[in-house]
Amino acid sequence: MVGDQLKHKTPEQLRLAAREGHFNETTSGLAPGFVQCNLVIIPQHYASDFADFCRRNPKPCPLLAVSPMAGDVSLPELGPDIDVRTDISRYRRWENGVLVEEPSNLLNHWCSDHVAFALGCSFSFEEALLADGLEIRNISEGVNVPMFRTNLPCFSAGPFAGNLVVSMRPMTPKDAIRAIQICTRFPAVHGAPIHFGDPAQIGINNLQQPDFGDAVSIKEGEVPLFWACGVTPQVALENAKLPVAFTHAPGHMLVSDKPNTGLAIL
Amino acid sequence: MVGDQLKHKTPEQLRLAAREGHFNETTSGLAPGFVQCNLVIIPQHYASDFADFCRRNPKPCPLLAVSPMAGDVSLPELGPDIDVRTDISRYRRWENGVLVEEPSNLLNHWCSDHVAFALGCSFSFEEALLADGLEIRNISEGVNVPMFRTNLPCFSAGPFAGNLVVSMRPMTPKDAIRAIQICTRFPAVHGAPIHFGDPAQIGINNLQQPDFGDAVSIKEGEVPLFWACGVTPQVALENAKLPVAFTHAPGHMLVSDKPNTGLAIL
Repeated sequence: MVGDQLKHKTPEQLRLAAREGHFNETTSGLAPGFVQCNLVIIPQHYASDFADFCRRNPKPCPLLAVSPMAGDVSLPELGPDIDVRTDISRYRRWENGVLVEEPSNLLNHWCSDHVAFALGCSFSFEEALLADGLEIRNISEGVNVPMFRTNLPCFSAGPFAGNLVVSMRPMTPKDAIRAIQICTRFPAVHGAPIHFGDPAQIGINNLQQPDFGDAVSIKEGEVPLFWACGVTPQVALENAKLPVAFTHAPGHMLVSDKPNTGLAIL
Repeated sequence: MVGDQLKHKTPEQLRLAAREGHFNETTSGLAPGFVQCNLVIIPQHYASDFADFCRRNPKPCPLLAVSPMAGDVSLPELGPDIDVRTDISRYRRWENGVLVEEPSNLLNHWCSDHVAFALGCSFSFEEALLADGLEIRNISEGVNVPMFRTNLPCFSAGPFAGNLVVSMRPMTPKDAIRAIQICTRFPAVHGAPIHFGDPAQIGINNLQQPDFGDAVSIKEGEVPLFWACGVTPQVALENAKLPVAFTHAPGHMLVSDKPNTGLAIL
């Protein structure tokens, strides 16, 4: 399935297409207006610690939904028909913190002690910024947002630990102030930036060499803004070296029925 | 009247003390928790244009109250007993845009076609920032906040025109983000900063040479934040060269019965 066909799909139609194997693209720009989520699936033994990691680090790990019980493939808060084994267009399977493969579904991997966590994603606040007329450089330049490992440690929980990962978007100071205001309304999708200006203050050496994603241009008079990023829990997951874990593949998000505007606290 | 005696006065007691000639100090730090206002008094002929200037430039000129009618000395929205001729501890009298004298009251100057305007002041948001644990450099260093003329023109109205004047407070980026969030809640007292970082972008050459107030130190890793300032309408008033006008003297504000927290829109 391609281009225009995808653009007009509802979240439910996109999930069904992924489930039936007709859709294996990234989800950026699809189902505009609806919340897309990072997905983490781990054995129940680690679920309490991971939930605690999210609770203690809400800016990088804003938890939107958890499986109603271990082995339950639904996430009713995000859509009545969701099946976390099949509804994402590409998954990642991890063993002992190492990426093993990128399966198109988890039907052969899911078992009764698995628990799924859905976390907020930057697509929601980017939509709110665009709606306000702000430019988002990674979107203008058609690339993935640049992401950087910082020297800011997360609060750890059980085996889950690591430094904060941030995404970076350059803006004029005036637009940056407006972006801080807008993102403050959306704590469930990373909230306000955690830093702006000098990257060295948070342990970033070179803005043109991101640790994840792609570099973007920074124009004269602009300052870099840094947001807590959903790659943070993935790094914590790698560090935890669980015997088995699953995530979405980058850019292949879980598309929910929840409207982005419904995440605004104000 | 001095020090400790003043600290425990209510807004009404401070106004009465000014009215009776027992109080001629500045009002910074007095009646904590209550809104203090900039005051502008002009002939009715210019009142509509001045109200329009405030409406068009709400960040530097947040209008809190206007005389119920020309010649009326009360401002009932700000306190039941206010007399704008006497309740400020020091006034300024202007003729043709030139400062003529600093009288302690306006009993000999007030006439039936005068209209008073009360505008929000930075003391209210400074209190909200302090309450959140942020440091405000001009308060730590015991000086007046540094203020600067910018190259940003206000929208003009009739004879009232001029560039925006800003106040500057240096903060770490983290505190600056928090300050933007807090001040966003208080649009009636200048709201969020209008700029941060490079002063040259808004026409300021040297942060150590303010146009009004005193210089403050800026520490390693801090950025300057710039707020729209209540000196802006005073500059517009000077530019307008009205035959006669009155304002409060700098730091001698009208102390109202309105709680600062009541200005929060959220």
